[in-house]
Amino acid sequence: MIVELISVGTELLLGNIVNTNAAYLAQQCASLGLSCYYQSVVGDNVDRLRRALLTALERADIVMLSGGLGPTTDDLTKETAADVMQMPLEMDGHSLERITSFFEKIGTKMTENNKKQALVPRGALVLDNENGTAPGLILEKDHKRLILLPGPPNELRPMFENSVRPYLEPLCTGTLYTRTVKICGMGESKAASVIQDLIDGQTNPTIAPYAKTGEVHLRVTAKAADGKEGAKLVKPVVKELKARFGVHIYTTDPEVTLEQAVVELLAANHLTACTVESCTGGMLASRLINVPGVSETFKAGYVTYSNKAKRRILGVKKGTLHKYGAVSAQVAQEMAEKAALVSKCDVTVSVTGIAGPDGGTPEKPVGLVYIGCCVCKKTTVRECRFTGSREKIRESAVSAALTLMRQCVLEYYSQVTFGK
Amino acid sequence: MIVELISVGTELLLGNIVNTNAAYLAQQCASLGLSCYYQSVVGDNVDRLRRALLTALERADIVMLSGGLGPTTDDLTKETAADVMQMPLEMDGHSLERITSFFEKIGTKMTENNKKQALVPRGALVLDNENGTAPGLILEKDHKRLILLPGPPNELRPMFENSVRPYLEPLCTGTLYTRTVKICGMGESKAASVIQDLIDGQTNPTIAPYAKTGEVHLRVTAKAADGKEGAKLVKPVVKELKARFGVHIYTTDPEVTLEQAVVELLAANHLTACTVESCTGGMLASRLINVPGVSETFKAGYVTYSNKAKRRILGVKKGTLHKYGAVSAQVAQEMAEKAALVSKCDVTVSVTGIAGPDGGTPEKPVGLVYIGCCVCKKTTVRECRFTGSREKIRESAVSAALTLMRQCVLEYYSQVTFGK
Repeated sequence: MIVELISVGTELLLGNIVNTNAAYLAQQCASLGLSCYYQSVVGDNVDRLRRALLTALERADIVMLSGGLGPTTDDLTKETAADVMQMPLEMDGHSLERITSFFEKIGTKMTENNKKQALVPRGALVLDNENGTAPGLILEKDHKRLILLPGPPNELRPMFENSVRPYLEPLCTGTLYTRTVKICGMGESKAASVIQDLIDGQTNPTIAPYAKTGEVHLRVTAKAADGKEGAKLVKPVVKELKARFGVHIYTTDPEVTLEQAVVELLAANHLTACTVESCTGGMLASRLINVPGVSETFKAGYVTYSNKAKRRILGVKKGTLHKYGAVSAQVAQEMAEKAALVSKCDVTVSVTGIAGPDGGTPEKPVGLVYIGCCVCKKTTVRECRFTGSREKIRESAVSAALTLMRQCVLEYYSQVTFGK
Repeated sequence: MIVELISVGTELLLGNIVNTNAAYLAQQCASLGLSCYYQSVVGDNVDRLRRALLTALERADIVMLSGGLGPTTDDLTKETAADVMQMPLEMDGHSLERITSFFEKIGTKMTENNKKQALVPRGALVLDNENGTAPGLILEKDHKRLILLPGPPNELRPMFENSVRPYLEPLCTGTLYTRTVKICGMGESKAASVIQDLIDGQTNPTIAPYAKTGEVHLRVTAKAADGKEGAKLVKPVVKELKARFGVHIYTTDPEVTLEQAVVELLAANHLTACTVESCTGGMLASRLINVPGVSETFKAGYVTYSNKAKRRILGVKKGTLHKYGAVSAQVAQEMAEKAALVSKCDVTVSVTGIAGPDGGTPEKPVGLVYIGCCVCKKTTVRECRFTGSREKIRESAVSAALTLMRQCVLEYYSQVTFGK
């Protein structure tokens, strides 16, 4: 089966947004074993969209369109698709009801233009949108399939997962089976050098390293007839990676994030946690709290951005701040230890650093961050030097803090040893 | 002049990387006043690349290709382009010299396959690559222009800036001038309905609304001979938008974020701020702290995720938590007011809600969030109902909290009135 992607939106043609939908859909299609030879982007223009659609329908069995399903007059994807497939639009009672109740739920008056979103090509499959108003649509005719998806990624992705993937699976022969081995506390070049021989000799499965902030993901992908064969092919490779990376691997589950692995580790040891943040300013707490069910583990967080807050809220000594400066190993240590006293949590982690763009000196440049982690009165402090924008430095610091939390808990409770 | 973009690379078709080059080139073309109606992505395959190239040459005056110029056998862009334009490849002494010295500089032995990169279509303009080996190329024939650029963004971008832009500028007769009006506290449909008449009647400039989490951005774009004429065309439209959206507009500067506007408003009034977060758990503090120089304004943040933390850290009354529940207007109010006492800040904002996926009840469903803002002892509480994933609900709550902070400060200090 051949699939082709068309992204609709003048904002893409103007370069105002990056086409992350195309990357997401391409990945999904590859994982289903669908071949994709072309992707295209076209603006909110009936003629050109029509031409792109006709070309794609000639070359592919399935054409997937994203964007242009909204309520405004420049949203034309559905109208154009209905016209090309000769399936006239009619009001869909179910969608109208869903859209109406969506607006009731969020307590906003539904405007007239939203009704347009309940118009559906006759005979089309309607895909409910759980995170927005515009329904997705599947139009089938003469062995060709058009799949229309809303543009906002938070609507498109769940709709693909919940409705489009189950629709496509029975049509697909062969699959790409993928497993991801996620590593923290090791850079990309180092990780790549550990497996260079495997990468050089690979055919099927293949291993591809992807650098994430503070993490490396190794994606192992096998081409196989089905999931079972894929799993069989991938298994020995994952085993080899586990042998090589050991404790640096925090998960082999594609869904599990570093923060989730940390929270699960804490919960498994019945530990409570608290964060004290300066330059990351709540970002670390926020990542932990994005894990559902974290309330058993995460108890409190302090954002002590100013020196005054460090002293008043935590009781960090004036002398320590004065002698070593707010960005120092000593202050990171005191922040973590004082937080343990104040919060009565088992694990406390502190972050203090210079996120920039200003505030750096030759001795303490932008990007210098100290992270402290106190587990049952034993404190470890790590000095890190990050590069990039203010946001990037803060994100790197958060990943490093999660990595240190994991390491300290593993060392203390599981007697695991980490190499330098 | 019409331009079309073709990105070459199987990694794009598989969704392994996001096509940031297309966004960059599209932006650059728009700023030069070149119209772009189509972008496409094609893999490292001669036949399909050839077909894509022929189609693009029919529709556009200039076709810009990125990727596939490297030394390996699957890099075929140059060979295909030379063939389509009937300009046979020959060795370019200058490029060979540059590539050889590039390898000397980085201290690596040049492999034989790198010589292929010095082959150039006869008569083509050669663009030196300052950050890599493959040169860029411009092929001209029969009033059509093909521009070939290397795929790595750190090679493509400087090459565009230094060589392609100066080459294109004399060919361009106009520019696209854009201004963005950013609105908070109003949904996309509502915002669109306010300006439906303007959108219906628009020719040049055009207005396009874009929904962001908790915000709407209205992008006003004019085609003009130059920036000065563009500014003149856009000015009355922006004025009209200001008249219609009034206080809901927080900026017309494309670089300014909502958190930055809030921080600037606080700083202009010499106000200090503090956050107390339950379900957003540090995300609000983190967004504020991403504004450089926020330390004068933002003093401290508390993540009081558990009821115990709400009581212990802030002193929220047990009775209030018991009677109304942690997710209630009363607790949001008490959190904001107690935070004002504890932190001694002028503006305190509290967030408490149910981010899900679990923990919802019929009376208090997932997505219910209360936001409190206390400005000089006067507290405003807002009830919000959000939809989507846990992360999406938390992001929506953060935007709503920033919007409420802005509104409360404006009402208190500038006597501005917000409608319902």
